[in-house]
Amino acid sequence: MTRMRTPLVAATLMLSLAAAANSQAADVDKAIEYRQDALGVMAWQIGPLGDMAQGKIEFDAETFTRRAENLAAVAPLPWEGFVEGSLQGDGHGIETDALADIGENWDDFESRQQSLIEESAKLAELAQGDDVAAMRRQVAAVAKTCKGCHDNYKAE
Amino acid sequence: MTRMRTPLVAATLMLSLAAAANSQAADVDKAIEYRQDALGVMAWQIGPLGDMAQGKIEFDAETFTRRAENLAAVAPLPWEGFVEGSLQGDGHGIETDALADIGENWDDFESRQQSLIEESAKLAELAQGDDVAAMRRQVAAVAKTCKGCHDNYKAE
Repeated sequence: MTRMRTPLVAATLMLSLAAAANSQAADVDKAIEYRQDALGVMAWQIGPLGDMAQGKIEFDAETFTRRAENLAAVAPLPWEGFVEGSLQGDGHGIETDALADIGENWDDFESRQQSLIEESAKLAELAQGDDVAAMRRQVAAVAKTCKGCHDNYKAE
Repeated sequence: MTRMRTPLVAATLMLSLAAAANSQAADVDKAIEYRQDALGVMAWQIGPLGDMAQGKIEFDAETFTRRAENLAAVAPLPWEGFVEGSLQGDGHGIETDALADIGENWDDFESRQQSLIEESAKLAELAQGDDVAAMRRQVAAVAKTCKGCHDNYKAE
């Protein structure tokens, strides 16, 4: 009996492992899509802040404050999407600009996330006040953290 | 001189109008992508809350609170992406599940947004406490607002 069941058990185990692998692959794909969504929301929110800071569109205090708050709320979100196996070259199903270098420089990547979160929080705080020059400078500080990470870890 | 310049002026005007139309079309496409991103982030955040509420995964207070706060922060965001000309049948460049009915029932659509925002805020508030049964019920209340809107305004 034991002998006869062995192939079945083995086959069942293999199917389970295959299912688990498929499920993990699906999880990686979803995580990539999630972080792309969250980064897209960040980009949408920071766009008008950058335009106002650079004088491309008129400064509007209400819009500025709302977008700064939204940005600060979203800044912590994308990073949980950088799960294991989700970088370029990891063989998942989704196109990503996230370079493999992220995996080799994880501490630096995390510290850059933290900078963005902190600079965004500072911007939201400044946006409660009325020092427009300081707000403009702080938008530049936030944008610098975006650019620093993109320059190092995002494919062109 | 005046006569000779007229065709050029007309051509320039036409080019400007075409550029403005293109720019508006690009804005609509970007708005659709933005709202899809924001709704994707919401779905990601609410997923584990639903799983915990239904007992599909173990209840974890820290995760629950964090996701409830994220959800409350993101709940107000998607709606600015429903700009004019961005529904199904509006002839833009992006595939969307947003039915034309939204445009004909805008007040109802806005009131449903508001319900989601309020129920999410209530969930985040409850998540500060320790009444797990109430948290579970409130996840259902949030999910009901998602479903209500999808049933009425999202293509299947």
